[in-house]
Amino acid sequence: MSAPTLIALLHGPDQPGLVARVSGWIFARGGNILHADQHHDREAGIFFQRVEWAPVGAEGVAERDARDFEAFAASLGMQVRVAVTSHRPRVAIFVSKANHCFHDLVLRWKAGDFACEIVAIVGNHADLAAAAAGYGLAFHHIPVEAATKAAAEARQLALLRELRADLVILARYMQVLSAEFLEKCGMPVINIHHSFLPAFAGGRPYHQAHARGVKLIGATAHYATRDLDEGPIINQDVARVTHRHGVDDLIRKGRDLEKTVLAQAVRWHLDSRVLVYGNKTVVFD
Amino acid sequence: MSAPTLIALLHGPDQPGLVARVSGWIFARGGNILHADQHHDREAGIFFQRVEWAPVGAEGVAERDARDFEAFAASLGMQVRVAVTSHRPRVAIFVSKANHCFHDLVLRWKAGDFACEIVAIVGNHADLAAAAAGYGLAFHHIPVEAATKAAAEARQLALLRELRADLVILARYMQVLSAEFLEKCGMPVINIHHSFLPAFAGGRPYHQAHARGVKLIGATAHYATRDLDEGPIINQDVARVTHRHGVDDLIRKGRDLEKTVLAQAVRWHLDSRVLVYGNKTVVFD
Amino acid sequence: MSAPTLIALLHGPDQPGLVARVSGWIFARGGNILHADQHHDREAGIFFQRVEWAPVGAEGVAERDARDFEAFAASLGMQVRVAVTSHRPRVAIFVSKANHCFHDLVLRWKAGDFACEIVAIVGNHADLAAAAAGYGLAFHHIPVEAATKAAAEARQLALLRELRADLVILARYMQVLSAEFLEKCGMPVINIHHSFLPAFAGGRPYHQAHARGVKLIGATAHYATRDLDEGPIINQDVARVTHRHGVDDLIRKGRDLEKTVLAQAVRWHLDSRVLVYGNKTVVFD
Amino acid sequence: MSAPTLIALLHGPDQPGLVARVSGWIFARGGNILHADQHHDREAGIFFQRVEWAPVGAEGVAERDARDFEAFAASLGMQVRVAVTSHRPRVAIFVSKANHCFHDLVLRWKAGDFACEIVAIVGNHADLAAAAAGYGLAFHHIPVEAATKAAAEARQLALLRELRADLVILARYMQVLSAEFLEKCGMPVINIHHSFLPAFAGGRPYHQAHARGVKLIGATAHYATRDLDEGPIINQDVARVTHRHGVDDLIRKGRDLEKTVLAQAVRWHLDSRVLVYGNKTVVFD
Repeated sequence: MSAPTLIALLHGPDQPGLVARVSGWIFARGGNILHADQHHDREAGIFFQRVEWAPVGAEGVAERDARDFEAFAASLGMQVRVAVTSHRPRVAIFVSKANHCFHDLVLRWKAGDFACEIVAIVGNHADLAAAAAGYGLAFHHIPVEAATKAAAEARQLALLRELRADLVILARYMQVLSAEFLEKCGMPVINIHHSFLPAFAGGRPYHQAHARGVKLIGATAHYATRDLDEGPIINQDVARVTHRHGVDDLIRKGRDLEKTVLAQAVRWHLDSRVLVYGNKTVVFD
Repeated sequence: MSAPTLIALLHGPDQPGLVARVSGWIFARGGNILHADQHHDREAGIFFQRVEWAPVGAEGVAERDARDFEAFAASLGMQVRVAVTSHRPRVAIFVSKANHCFHDLVLRWKAGDFACEIVAIVGNHADLAAAAAGYGLAFHHIPVEAATKAAAEARQLALLRELRADLVILARYMQVLSAEFLEKCGMPVINIHHSFLPAFAGGRPYHQAHARGVKLIGATAHYATRDLDEGPIINQDVARVTHRHGVDDLIRKGRDLEKTVLAQAVRWHLDSRVLVYGNKTVVFD
Repeated sequence: MSAPTLIALLHGPDQPGLVARVSGWIFARGGNILHADQHHDREAGIFFQRVEWAPVGAEGVAERDARDFEAFAASLGMQVRVAVTSHRPRVAIFVSKANHCFHDLVLRWKAGDFACEIVAIVGNHADLAAAAAGYGLAFHHIPVEAATKAAAEARQLALLRELRADLVILARYMQVLSAEFLEKCGMPVINIHHSFLPAFAGGRPYHQAHARGVKLIGATAHYATRDLDEGPIINQDVARVTHRHGVDDLIRKGRDLEKTVLAQAVRWHLDSRVLVYGNKTVVFD
Repeated sequence: MSAPTLIALLHGPDQPGLVARVSGWIFARGGNILHADQHHDREAGIFFQRVEWAPVGAEGVAERDARDFEAFAASLGMQVRVAVTSHRPRVAIFVSKANHCFHDLVLRWKAGDFACEIVAIVGNHADLAAAAAGYGLAFHHIPVEAATKAAAEARQLALLRELRADLVILARYMQVLSAEFLEKCGMPVINIHHSFLPAFAGGRPYHQAHARGVKLIGATAHYATRDLDEGPIINQDVARVTHRHGVDDLIRKGRDLEKTVLAQAVRWHLDSRVLVYGNKTVVFD
């Protein structure tokens, strides 16, 4: 309902005058900067900026300015991504059987917390089909077996293309996406997983954490990359546990963490607040 | 040891092109912006900026640029404060009998956490005189009685002037400074006090909080103003308590909170990260 | 599915040997203590205990032991409440228009987090009727107007009696319950509300908190009493906010706090972990 | 100044009636239980208890009751440790060059937070000798080189024996204690180290964490065992970091965490709240 704004996330080799050039470009077009935040990585010599501005002009000016700004940023040697807020990203949520992140994301979306369209729920199990229908959301059941994984991923990719999706959220999707899938899908994939101090390799991490007597459990939201659970971190949080908490309590508290950590990461992503470089993120919160 | 930089905190009526003008001014002088953070208060129509830059030129250029930038900001209708990092603010710490914030501040300062000089410890009691001496710090004992309060504050003001102090920290100083003192001293005064949900009026707040069975206790650091404990908030934090904690435990946990909340507020202030407007702050952390 | 256990919450004048007597009574019956936690309020001279044990015997022994233990505790001068875990408390959730606590409670209940039956959703508005139906829950629309409040409360009381409810949860129910209602309903009523440091009297507290520039917002779950928002506190938590958060962000973060703080309070209550005395609680977490 | 109390930490195979037997034993002696907390590890079938009581009788009764209770607990098949609060544990603090944990521990001790005597500061470097002297504490400089490590540890062990120490605190002591030392010293050794999610092997962990872009850093206090940094965890906490924090900021925030996490662990240990079994702890907080 409000007029669209533009949000640019740019980064590249640091050089004097970048802030002046970017703000000067916008000013010269009559745009009004609403937010601007910069960061300099001294050691790496990289400049990062998130700048949001209101363009001035007739309908369609935002899209034209977005394209022009991309060309301008490229001329500065910067990598850039420009979002126009009138375009609501199209999101596919991948699920398995666990429903806590699924419900949490959908309810927040319905409450207006997320500037996106949820265009599909994709499950390798059908457990959440009825819940998705109850929310009026399309559910796609694409089973994944070891023998048929490649074919299943091909179906997922075709679906994402057909839906013109912009983002995949793995809401406790219990399958590892192949490196090939991640390369081909051409859009960010946000994942959530548990985290512990110390870390535990192998299966049943909550059981291991309980056996080790940890006093904190955690969750990490990150972009999925070829190296499982090793992609750029977007958000992390922890909860305190004691000896009075059994494995079931740890799992329950872990569910709460997973919900809030994932929801915050998704919100930051959708608000164009997360800039990825190398294997890390700058989050302009 | 590193070359001095300039940090400007400016705010005033929002208008298009402010970011471009400020960065353009710095760029035209050959300066390199190291950090810049903006904020817009939409409802109030106010623009806020913290910008840090490295000036280029011979010795003394930083001071000259600081003066020039102040004139420039005034021409934009902005209020501004410009700090040159080669000038280390001169700090007076006011104490009474409690020593936890005093030791914490001094040890952090000795560890290099605070970009300042501690030029005096001022106590209305002499309890911390020996500890100050142990740290090699000058201690000034200025007793305060109801009958002699005006004279004591006059002595404090004279001392601050003589020491050319830039900042007063009330490190659990248990006297209320008069409105007259705050007007005349001409420098910020940072205070720390306990906070509760709900709040408790009257004396012995920890006893009241214990009687009420609160599950959280808190501390707030703020700039002192005429209205006691009502000045602009810089930092707040809480700690969890249970029925197993007696009043003594609450007080002990409160001490820990007071230390960390005050230290963080002082650090932000010394790094020119706190901008006051009206009765609130923008903290560019 | 597991055999029922008994949980006693008792408190009364402290006296030597109470732990020995209570554990001896259970041991003499062949019961096995699973958990026991004691607390002594030294100043008030009060003893508090939560003890959970597995009774030995044929079906029905748990109920008989519960009654016998109540008589035993009375003989010690103790007030006691004994829960048999095979009895799942019957819960009515009161709502208005806001749905975040409602969805959160129901989804946690469906996930098995709450040992209770949700027997009714009672709304003074009908906004959540469809959502309740979607969960298969009975929805009762009882409008409340100033002129008809007494009649509306009478209907609510009749409904609670008819449903044999054991607990009322106010899930952002935006009506003040009268002292008469609270006296007559004969069951605990758990409420959730926002909390701030400092506290703000009057309306639109999030707007006031924003205007004051607070750095923390909070939520408090408590038992409702005649003095609005002044009943025994069960749980509290806070979230950090900055100048970058507008009023809408504060409200959104407040919603998240309200959900988690209320859910934890309800869980503790249902697990017989909350003992009220005077205007405070002992939470055996 | 107050009359001594006894605190027993006991654990062993779970069996019906343990709570009754323990409390009955104390009651039969005329003792009054002040606190009692139990825990049952269902999977392992182990019972844990912390019980504190005030004995009745002439001087010396506490020590006699402590010995008697140990015999009694053994007759139940329980392992037990009984502390008499009139005996203040004798503590040796091991340091290297970093001073933050050292100052923090000593100042808390002087403030009355720790029920112990600090009998020696032992440094492999002499950097903190003057600070120790300033506090009136004996400083022992025992250099440790790879070639002389065995001899140095022999000197340390002899010193601990001579001082009749009960506890060693490693306050950022940057040497690995040998398995032989830990076996021979015959007393608990509490260590503090940084923790990250994910964990980082190898040197310069803060640099690794910064390169990885973590959003949380942590600290863990634990009992030292043969497996470095793998002993039973007593306490953990984390702090939030962003891309704006450089390596120096991470280290500074890490220092704050190390102080508070270690101090809390030491306090719990000295109050006989930490029971070790296997490689984990039960903390009766």
